[in-house]
Amino acid sequence: MNDKHIVSSFDRDLESIQASVIKMGGLVEAALADAITALKTRDVEKAAMVRKGDRFIDELDQVVKTDAAKLIALRSPTASDLRTVLSVMEISSHLERCGDYAKNMGKRTIAMADSNEINGTLASLGRMSQFVEAMIKDALDAFVQRDLEKAREIIARDEEADQIYNTLFRSLLTHMMEDHRNIAVGMHLHFIAKNIERVGDHATGIAEQTIYLVTGQMPDDDRPKQDVPAVDTSESKG
Amino acid sequence: MNDKHIVSSFDRDLESIQASVIKMGGLVEAALADAITALKTRDVEKAAMVRKGDRFIDELDQVVKTDAAKLIALRSPTASDLRTVLSVMEISSHLERCGDYAKNMGKRTIAMADSNEINGTLASLGRMSQFVEAMIKDALDAFVQRDLEKAREIIARDEEADQIYNTLFRSLLTHMMEDHRNIAVGMHLHFIAKNIERVGDHATGIAEQTIYLVTGQMPDDDRPKQDVPAVDTSESKG
Repeated sequence: MNDKHIVSSFDRDLESIQASVIKMGGLVEAALADAITALKTRDVEKAAMVRKGDRFIDELDQVVKTDAAKLIALRSPTASDLRTVLSVMEISSHLERCGDYAKNMGKRTIAMADSNEINGTLASLGRMSQFVEAMIKDALDAFVQRDLEKAREIIARDEEADQIYNTLFRSLLTHMMEDHRNIAVGMHLHFIAKNIERVGDHATGIAEQTIYLVTGQMPDDDRPKQDVPAVDTSESKG
Repeated sequence: MNDKHIVSSFDRDLESIQASVIKMGGLVEAALADAITALKTRDVEKAAMVRKGDRFIDELDQVVKTDAAKLIALRSPTASDLRTVLSVMEISSHLERCGDYAKNMGKRTIAMADSNEINGTLASLGRMSQFVEAMIKDALDAFVQRDLEKAREIIARDEEADQIYNTLFRSLLTHMMEDHRNIAVGMHLHFIAKNIERVGDHATGIAEQTIYLVTGQMPDDDRPKQDVPAVDTSESKG
């Protein structure tokens, strides 16, 4: 049974803003998928489209921010409702940044169009990208449903994303050490991997907003995050 | 002569929020300077302090966002004033992200504490960091003074920051190719260089908000940005 029989004007306005955020999420997922496809297939045109398409994500971010501000101005929401609007604005910023990462992947695909592939790396990047796309999608679902458990589960998944990134980091380093012709392209692939890993961080940021909304407190930020592998300068590998 | 004899309540509230943003700017500059010093002197404790100190920048960001929302709720500002408050919120987000980059530099300094130095790179990183610190400071000045010329000059300076980054990118690549023991530490230094370059982008983002406020239009985002060097896979260098 639903306790809330009367939907307030505030709720209606908020839902319309949330719809824009969900739309942004869809664009971000598509941009990431297209960026990876462009990278895998050396499709410079598709990469250029991802790069240009980021404009639409940026525009939606502006729409969300402006609509949210108008809602605040019009309804003067109190503590909890105000927090909700601020959360929606923060989530919009997270998605806008994810769009920037997809755009950067497009740029790098164009820059490395004529380079050699490094064995297996593109497949790993593709899997990692699918993993964080799902995190974004689920983080938005958790937000819309105010689902605390789902939100916490996203944060746990980010540790897995970090581990995938670290494995890829070490694998790329090995390839670069084995053949110096791999170094330049390895650098770009590293940055692409880092971009994808950062999308996972933003999914976590979105999940944290949900936790904040439901519990009134941000989760502790000091969890041990393994996103900067230590440097092993020994030469024992060779 | 000042045309505005009567300072509105809105202006007073806004000034107090702007003061928080300026304070954030100061913390970001200090965090960047400390992160570079920690890197140069292999000072793991200082690096850890930078990492922890990011919390204060994040907290100020929260304060700015909440105060801005309260101002909107209380005063229901109209078009131009609303735009100003939204700009202050965006600038706060830019600074928060700069804080994240300084924090990441701290993390990387800790991760590479026992590695070899790559000739001259730390000095270059130091110069690049001072360059973007000044950009942040001047971008905030331009915003407070609504100085269109100054804001445009920041955007021009970002091209120089990109060039410094590209030079450093190529120099690091060369070192990595010459001696594979440089590869792992070179990767970390690359990411640090990229972090610094991104701070320049955020200074540009702040300058763009000023241009938006004064002219009512965002500057064209499609300027040719040289922040992703093309990959040269030929071996002619060796």
